[in-house]
Amino acid sequence: MNRKKVTLGIEIGGTQTSFGLVDISGNCYIESKIPTKANESPEALFERLYKKFNKVYKGESNKYELLGVGIGAPSANYYKGTVEYSSNLNWIYVNIIDLAKKYFDLPIVIANDANAAALGEMKFGVAKKMKNFIQLTLSRGFGSGIVVDGNIVYGSDGFAGEIGHTIVEKNGRSCGCGRKGCLETYVSVGGLVRTYYELLSKINETSVLKEFSPNQINADLVLRAAKNGDKLAISAFEYTGQILGEALANVVAYLSPEAVILSEGLAAAGDLLLNPTKHHMEKNMLNLFQGKVEILLSGLVKGNVAILGASALSWHNIQKNK
Amino acid sequence: MNRKKVTLGIEIGGTQTSFGLVDISGNCYIESKIPTKANESPEALFERLYKKFNKVYKGESNKYELLGVGIGAPSANYYKGTVEYSSNLNWIYVNIIDLAKKYFDLPIVIANDANAAALGEMKFGVAKKMKNFIQLTLSRGFGSGIVVDGNIVYGSDGFAGEIGHTIVEKNGRSCGCGRKGCLETYVSVGGLVRTYYELLSKINETSVLKEFSPNQINADLVLRAAKNGDKLAISAFEYTGQILGEALANVVAYLSPEAVILSEGLAAAGDLLLNPTKHHMEKNMLNLFQGKVEILLSGLVKGNVAILGASALSWHNIQKNK
Repeated sequence: MNRKKVTLGIEIGGTQTSFGLVDISGNCYIESKIPTKANESPEALFERLYKKFNKVYKGESNKYELLGVGIGAPSANYYKGTVEYSSNLNWIYVNIIDLAKKYFDLPIVIANDANAAALGEMKFGVAKKMKNFIQLTLSRGFGSGIVVDGNIVYGSDGFAGEIGHTIVEKNGRSCGCGRKGCLETYVSVGGLVRTYYELLSKINETSVLKEFSPNQINADLVLRAAKNGDKLAISAFEYTGQILGEALANVVAYLSPEAVILSEGLAAAGDLLLNPTKHHMEKNMLNLFQGKVEILLSGLVKGNVAILGASALSWHNIQKNK
Repeated sequence: MNRKKVTLGIEIGGTQTSFGLVDISGNCYIESKIPTKANESPEALFERLYKKFNKVYKGESNKYELLGVGIGAPSANYYKGTVEYSSNLNWIYVNIIDLAKKYFDLPIVIANDANAAALGEMKFGVAKKMKNFIQLTLSRGFGSGIVVDGNIVYGSDGFAGEIGHTIVEKNGRSCGCGRKGCLETYVSVGGLVRTYYELLSKINETSVLKEFSPNQINADLVLRAAKNGDKLAISAFEYTGQILGEALANVVAYLSPEAVILSEGLAAAGDLLLNPTKHHMEKNMLNLFQGKVEILLSGLVKGNVAILGASALSWHNIQKNK
């Protein structure tokens, strides 16, 4: 029997670590996950991970030819194979590749989750034919992966692509990074809620959201209200799209991408976010670029975005080194 | 006799078009130039250019082996070989490569002047060992060339690298591009003079510059005054460095370069500009990047920056295609 060529994608997240085997067409097999425990050592996490992997893989191993391992993790460094100062994982400095090599005698590659997601879009999603695009994950944080000429931009130290931490508003909202006015404080799940508060302070408008205390409110509630026509909630998405569109106009001047792809979190809002983003991007863009750049929703809708992205990391490396 | 391997670098500028032969070490030979005439057709310009080139090259041709031609021009498109809508040249759409091929039966490559300058720094200047850096030319405009992984970023349409036209101040200064608040309106030769006016409006300070009418004032006068300790002039450079440093903090978050290289125009100010730029870049930068990025002055001090850059374009292409 011909064994199916696959790579193993592993996504280490703040609350769970998931994995799966992915073939070159983006089909995912033996997908599974374990919880990521706060304050657990990376060694202990990998031991549990491998145990779980073995359990689901054992009976199936004759079906697959495992070519490589791709790992996505917050604050991961592609060049060094490390995770450094990850606030999500409480890890100071871990060489993930060394750790993973104890379990897998295969080519192993690691990158931060947003970069992995970008490669996922390029291998399996809406960026299949693109060589220059920007991938944004708009969930708890604002992650970004920049693709130039078919490759992720890692920069001189492996940490390029921190678009979420560009300052878009001088003396703006306080950011977890210690500075003020970062794009992430406006365009993220938490940023949307902060915008809702800002609008409460600025405009008088009835809203179903006023039933909820600050301890109850979240982005899902704002999204549901907006979809039901709540004006205040719609305004919150319009303002979010304005800030994002203005920022993208600058991104385009730097990099002239074919498209900007939105995934996770706020991307679920669809046109509620896309329309104001497009409008303000075009309005603020240099003529040269007007009408050229698409804003798209992620094409990784069928599978687990994180696993597909991590696996794509490995596929990309295999194909590059051929 | 062994003939010296060289490429021909041609820089088409708004007022003059210069050329020279450059060897792989950056030595420049038979350098010469002709005026660029306003409203002259590109065909007529190339005819005059070739006539001049032939005149200086004829007696020397046995000394050189000409490997290729590199052309730098404003609004040039690397992919298409064209100059499009160049406000400096009054040309709507010209295929420069087709035009140059009538005269030179050699590989010909074209890029905008700032991208050519970036390759010049990489081949012959301070970026010799760098694979990720940003090159800025701070003269009449704010030109920029972005180098990622040893290659210029041209983007999807060949027009990437317009950092001068990112908006850094909402509703800021009017820009020639029709929008407001572009970086170029603050950080350029003209931007410095505008900053001088802004400071006149904001602070009370004696200054030798107050002798000059707006028709007389220029960046050179402001620079000379600053070098002589004039406080208002020094403040103008400090503000320029602040705006540039804030913008660079964002550039670093995108691309994580090893260095930012300043050349032409305002770069002549040296520490008067470098010091505030460094200070404000570090102050506004994500911790992750602090202390990692150098700000350097151009290393192309020996020769004509424009010719070296244009020639480097050709050298880069020859080496890439080997």
